[in-house]
Amino acid sequence: MLEKLTCPTLLLNEQICRENIRDMAQKARRHGLRLRPHMKTHQSAEVGEWMRAAGLSAITVSSVAMADYFARAGWTDITIAFPVNHREIDEINRLAAMVDLQLLVVMPESVTFLREHLTHPVGFFIKIDCGSRRTGIPAGETAQIDEILRLSEGSSRLQFRGFLTHAGHAYSGHSRADLLRIHRGILRDLQELKAKYRPQYPRLIASMGNTPSCSIAEEFNDIDEIRPGNFVFYDVMQLALGACRWKQIAVALACPVVARHPERNEIVIYGGAVHLSKDRIVSDGKPDFGRVVRLREDGWSAPLPDTYVRSVSQEHGMIRTNPEHLGDFRVGELIGILPIHSCLTADLMGAYATLDGRKISMMNSDGK
Amino acid sequence: MLEKLTCPTLLLNEQICRENIRDMAQKARRHGLRLRPHMKTHQSAEVGEWMRAAGLSAITVSSVAMADYFARAGWTDITIAFPVNHREIDEINRLAAMVDLQLLVVMPESVTFLREHLTHPVGFFIKIDCGSRRTGIPAGETAQIDEILRLSEGSSRLQFRGFLTHAGHAYSGHSRADLLRIHRGILRDLQELKAKYRPQYPRLIASMGNTPSCSIAEEFNDIDEIRPGNFVFYDVMQLALGACRWKQIAVALACPVVARHPERNEIVIYGGAVHLSKDRIVSDGKPDFGRVVRLREDGWSAPLPDTYVRSVSQEHGMIRTNPEHLGDFRVGELIGILPIHSCLTADLMGAYATLDGRKISMMNSDGK
Repeated sequence: MLEKLTCPTLLLNEQICRENIRDMAQKARRHGLRLRPHMKTHQSAEVGEWMRAAGLSAITVSSVAMADYFARAGWTDITIAFPVNHREIDEINRLAAMVDLQLLVVMPESVTFLREHLTHPVGFFIKIDCGSRRTGIPAGETAQIDEILRLSEGSSRLQFRGFLTHAGHAYSGHSRADLLRIHRGILRDLQELKAKYRPQYPRLIASMGNTPSCSIAEEFNDIDEIRPGNFVFYDVMQLALGACRWKQIAVALACPVVARHPERNEIVIYGGAVHLSKDRIVSDGKPDFGRVVRLREDGWSAPLPDTYVRSVSQEHGMIRTNPEHLGDFRVGELIGILPIHSCLTADLMGAYATLDGRKISMMNSDGK
Repeated sequence: MLEKLTCPTLLLNEQICRENIRDMAQKARRHGLRLRPHMKTHQSAEVGEWMRAAGLSAITVSSVAMADYFARAGWTDITIAFPVNHREIDEINRLAAMVDLQLLVVMPESVTFLREHLTHPVGFFIKIDCGSRRTGIPAGETAQIDEILRLSEGSSRLQFRGFLTHAGHAYSGHSRADLLRIHRGILRDLQELKAKYRPQYPRLIASMGNTPSCSIAEEFNDIDEIRPGNFVFYDVMQLALGACRWKQIAVALACPVVARHPERNEIVIYGGAVHLSKDRIVSDGKPDFGRVVRLREDGWSAPLPDTYVRSVSQEHGMIRTNPEHLGDFRVGELIGILPIHSCLTADLMGAYATLDGRKISMMNSDGK
């Protein structure tokens, strides 16, 4: 299969991906959690089918367009985990007529807007900010929560479902201990909210996202639902956080080598910012845009030591290595890059190639 | 037009874009230079027509696929300014049969490869590294250049065209003085090479890229050809380098406001890393992912002071502003973001909307 690839191609190891899905589904069952995976990482109806085969029936998406794509792929229980965009109310109404739709509310004025403009029933979650300071209401600010609930009362179209959080700040942690500390904060916030609001809303759901917490934590207490997305593929950022092992990373960008610079232990690949994205981590004080693996017909090696993508421009990737590995790279051959952030790499590439050469399409394969 | 937009949309101000093209074409004529614009910024056949209307007839691209797209759009003189990718030799041969094609050679082994595999004549440039340390041969290393020329001699299919450089390091400059210093280095390198090789190759071309140099410099000495790309749109990075004024920035991402956080002077927009890219500059010691403008039916305002995109996640953008401007942002309304790096934003968005609501497609509008 590899010999046919001429350009940067995102390889997807189906076996690893299915194992990641199976493992997270088993973990959710073990803890009595509903797994409502976030589809924004893979954006693919076919990968969605692998999730269905693992027994999953409810999903999370990050846009109305993505909800529409997966509704057309047969999913009927969809949460759009992004603050409701008033400008898309027509499309929201169209979707709400077709599927069980849950929206995310972060401000009282959105409740007022939805009451006036919804034509079909939807569920809604209140977004809780557990410390990431992106958006949502801090758990302690119950006056705002009360106002949202008061505004929604008596509406036949707006049904309060519960509290939802995404701990984006987990990604700024530096160790498993950091991650677990952040995770315990989420549990505490959601526990307090449940204690306060369950008397009035006995069926309310506490929903949490983020792959690092869901991968590492073994305590979930009052949580009802988890919404990890990245776990289907994992990536170098998750590896650096301790949320996965390299053998769990399910995607690698196959890139042609186009130049060698032995005098500075560098090689140049066809594979840059329009393929990998400009997301990066800092390793040993230096920016790192991806790790390098040797490709095989049945997968890829462990990341090569002392070898990483030091910079990317639009189409170029610059790899730094050591004299020992330099000889492995020949112009015209392919190497693999494990992405820093698989969600963004997948979004840019717009399609996958399985190891047996099958193309898997994504929602943007036919244009954004 | 604006009231119809529901999702992040890349607005293209056709008038500004045509003026940018006209200005650069006039500057090239004034200095006796051939302008061979790089199409990787806009990737659009229609914007290409605006270039043709300004009298341009030769182009630069960054991939074989892009060469193919513009060849089908009627361009017949195309330089692929990326190290020749041996794995695409079949497509290169197909293109070379159709158009005047120039390739980029950075290593002797590529000459050997091309001699063996080309089926049609192509021109080639030798890539010179004037200090960016991405790829190419430093101007002083004439032994490598001599080897490439020796290997190409006697080939009926490989015609040496000259030396080509792209000073990527111009983007790490901090002032016009830095830019001009880097520009003078390029002139010196190319002058030396011309002096040495012109006796043997009297028609050789010295070609330089990069928008900052081409925008600011007024001395071009021995340069024959310039290949800027970004100048069609410019962006916040060019503005920060002093290479353009804000009124020359021709694209803005229209984004719905989805949340307000007055307590921390922040708003949240629908518009994130999958729209803007994760490219950034550092302003006042803080990362900056875009500048904020008020949108009007006929364009947009100057960037709002003290207001910028402080972070992006997949679909979210976090804008920090000041109490004075906070009141301007209402949930459900649109604001504009001037991108840090318009090439990457355009690549992600895959299409443009003109101010009169016309859609302009790009090479990836129908899938990558």
